[in-house]
Amino acid sequence: MSDTVVPIAVGPSRPDPTLLVKAVGEGGATLSDLAEARALIWAGGPGEFPDELPASIEWVQLPAAGVEDWFTAGILARHPQVRFTSAAGAFANSVAEHALMLLLAGVRYLPEHLRAASWRQQDFFPHVGTLRGKTVTIVGAGGIGRALIPLLVPLGAQIIAVNRSGRPVTGPGIPDSVETVPAEQLGKIWSRTDHVVIAAPATAATRHLVGAEELARLKPSSWIINVARGSLIDTDALVAALASGAIAGAGLDVTEPEPLPDGHPLWVLPNAIVTPHDSNPPQLRLAAFADHVAANVSRFVEGRELLAPVDPARGY
Amino acid sequence: MSDTVVPIAVGPSRPDPTLLVKAVGEGGATLSDLAEARALIWAGGPGEFPDELPASIEWVQLPAAGVEDWFTAGILARHPQVRFTSAAGAFANSVAEHALMLLLAGVRYLPEHLRAASWRQQDFFPHVGTLRGKTVTIVGAGGIGRALIPLLVPLGAQIIAVNRSGRPVTGPGIPDSVETVPAEQLGKIWSRTDHVVIAAPATAATRHLVGAEELARLKPSSWIINVARGSLIDTDALVAALASGAIAGAGLDVTEPEPLPDGHPLWVLPNAIVTPHDSNPPQLRLAAFADHVAANVSRFVEGRELLAPVDPARGY
Repeated sequence: MSDTVVPIAVGPSRPDPTLLVKAVGEGGATLSDLAEARALIWAGGPGEFPDELPASIEWVQLPAAGVEDWFTAGILARHPQVRFTSAAGAFANSVAEHALMLLLAGVRYLPEHLRAASWRQQDFFPHVGTLRGKTVTIVGAGGIGRALIPLLVPLGAQIIAVNRSGRPVTGPGIPDSVETVPAEQLGKIWSRTDHVVIAAPATAATRHLVGAEELARLKPSSWIINVARGSLIDTDALVAALASGAIAGAGLDVTEPEPLPDGHPLWVLPNAIVTPHDSNPPQLRLAAFADHVAANVSRFVEGRELLAPVDPARGY
Repeated sequence: MSDTVVPIAVGPSRPDPTLLVKAVGEGGATLSDLAEARALIWAGGPGEFPDELPASIEWVQLPAAGVEDWFTAGILARHPQVRFTSAAGAFANSVAEHALMLLLAGVRYLPEHLRAASWRQQDFFPHVGTLRGKTVTIVGAGGIGRALIPLLVPLGAQIIAVNRSGRPVTGPGIPDSVETVPAEQLGKIWSRTDHVVIAAPATAATRHLVGAEELARLKPSSWIINVARGSLIDTDALVAALASGAIAGAGLDVTEPEPLPDGHPLWVLPNAIVTPHDSNPPQLRLAAFADHVAANVSRFVEGRELLAPVDPARGY
């Protein structure tokens, strides 16, 4: 740790910046006015962003994971000498926690338990499963996928991570026992895995990544969880697989279409769990952003590489 | 590892001993007939246990966590030269996984989600919580409590473990950040904790450990999970706290009375999750026992201390 004071400003004054001020301190920096600051932690929108930044500002932390609006507003172009970082990855923990919840609730047969009004222990016994010794394939090894792996490993699950390159997924809490498979070999995975978690971005290449053929190769005991985007699963094929018992169930925080219309079969199928894209609700976002800020302030103070740098050339 | 062959027998021939035979191999020993064996892995009941054991037998692994029936049948008394081990701790993982599932389902508002037939995202948002940054108190630091800690830590929960001695709880996957509190100071915990998991044995001292007074000191956002014995919670007080919203909810794998009778309020309260004592169903027990056997065989082969030794003087 350096003995030098690192002055960092926080803005705007609303919403209440208390958590972010605390994060600046936790990261080892000192709160200061913008005029004296070397960095700015910004919790507001692009519309309220200062027109001018003092020449002392080296780094600006933005509050969103996707920063298209900041590009559109011309803020990055206006400050070419400043490093910008986004909040990409900051919100992955809540979504990963939600995915774990959906998978565990499915595997342990919670939906049927919640409909019961009678003990019937012998009826329930055979349906209560475990993740221990089971293979869970996580399609997508971005922030959410990498946050989910350390939650599943202590439960004794075997993890297959699917990414584009097939380069081994690494990170805190990710053991060498995780098998990484390139997306082009995903076809070989369906019949090998017990469960699937979809955590990949929505692109032309991932649209209906899971369709009738893929679902048919899963097991009658398989759960499929989607916390990414509804378009990655062919909804009609999923409804058919759920209705026929081809798979055990689906836990969906995202759907296609979204919002899911009233009367849709996914609302009534007993083995479908639908949560209305609420895995990362507003009240959890500020605390998650504060954690991200503390981590990045600490990196800034120590002169290390910052998390989630925005590359003006790439546009994200 | 020793180059010496360590012969171990497995019995009886039913149920299918394949998993246990595999576990003997995984532990580094060699399957043999009872007559030549140095140890016996027993998967049956006390009634089928061999009347005589060869003098070569040094160790017998029993298949139950509680071995009262083996004492009653006189089996330990008949073989004073043999070390017996129980399966205590072997079944903790499944119960800990169940406790995690109940807690996550509660905190993330799954019961109400499952009753929904409409998207209503804005209604759901404020009710979706997280374990990140929350304090979870685990009352009881036996096998289940110690198995649960490594599942909660990666979710970012702060753990308070309550045991009799207050000596710091240690074990694989249990970090120094876990605070251990002696049971006599449990009274100070209720107002400090966000959630409570009951995983302590049923004794005269723990009967109605959680009553009206304790529930009143928890938060309106608190969930209480019971995977131990129903008698640890005063059911009437719990029903009142759930109905009034004094706490957010309860996840119960055990109840008092048990089985919970039809028509009981816990079946209809929207914030009560009841599973009929099925957190460790029969089909998961054999695999869990096999894991325990592999670990103990490995210890036997290497001359290390065995897991779950039975002490004839204590009676367990």
